[in-house]
Amino acid sequence: MSTVKVLPLLEPDAVAPCCPPLTQRPLTAEEAERTALMFKALGDPVRLRLFSAVASHEGGEACVCDISDVGVSQPTVSHHLKKLREAGLLSSERRGTWVYYRVEPTVLAAMGQLLTRAATA
Amino acid sequence: MSTVKVLPLLEPDAVAPCCPPLTQRPLTAEEAERTALMFKALGDPVRLRLFSAVASHEGGEACVCDISDVGVSQPTVSHHLKKLREAGLLSSERRGTWVYYRVEPTVLAAMGQLLTRAATA
Repeated sequence: MSTVKVLPLLEPDAVAPCCPPLTQRPLTAEEAERTALMFKALGDPVRLRLFSAVASHEGGEACVCDISDVGVSQPTVSHHLKKLREAGLLSSERRGTWVYYRVEPTVLAAMGQLLTRAATA
Repeated sequence: MSTVKVLPLLEPDAVAPCCPPLTQRPLTAEEAERTALMFKALGDPVRLRLFSAVASHEGGEACVCDISDVGVSQPTVSHHLKKLREAGLLSSERRGTWVYYRVEPTVLAAMGQLLTRAATA
């Protein structure tokens, strides 16, 4: 039994099942469909800023009130946060007045893994 | 002083200048504009399959003739390869009859770095 005090993100268990590094083998059609959704969600500058605002916020979570300074209206912020949630990149939880958003670490790790070079490249 | 024995791809030299991990601090508007283009380019299933086909091909490069089995027409393949090139993800070179595509390793590494957790998270 080892107590892992490092980042859990590189443990096989912590990584969502889809997919191998893009450099390892061509993705199947089904893998590409699933994975493209995640990349597409980050393929918008406002969403990317909101995502990094949540991801870099203390404790890895943020309420809308913390991250609304991206130059768009509050409804637009909410719309983009919803898209990020639908793509599985953020989870959300209502606590009192506010909804708190949190990065899904397994998804982040899975995406990072996609972009690593295959071990034997 | 911890020795981090993580992925070799994160060597500073190999990484394009933009941007820090998304978990480190919120991206600026300009950083987000540049970075979203790369994610957007991979946010399409056909482009993602073509990209992984090139990235995983022997020697890290492939000619159109090698990677056309993604279920779309040759002009569509060419269109998507052009988009990937415009996003800086692929470079291309004509040799004889064929155009060869190659993954830009610095861009791949930069994207991978974006998705790692910040070292001191």
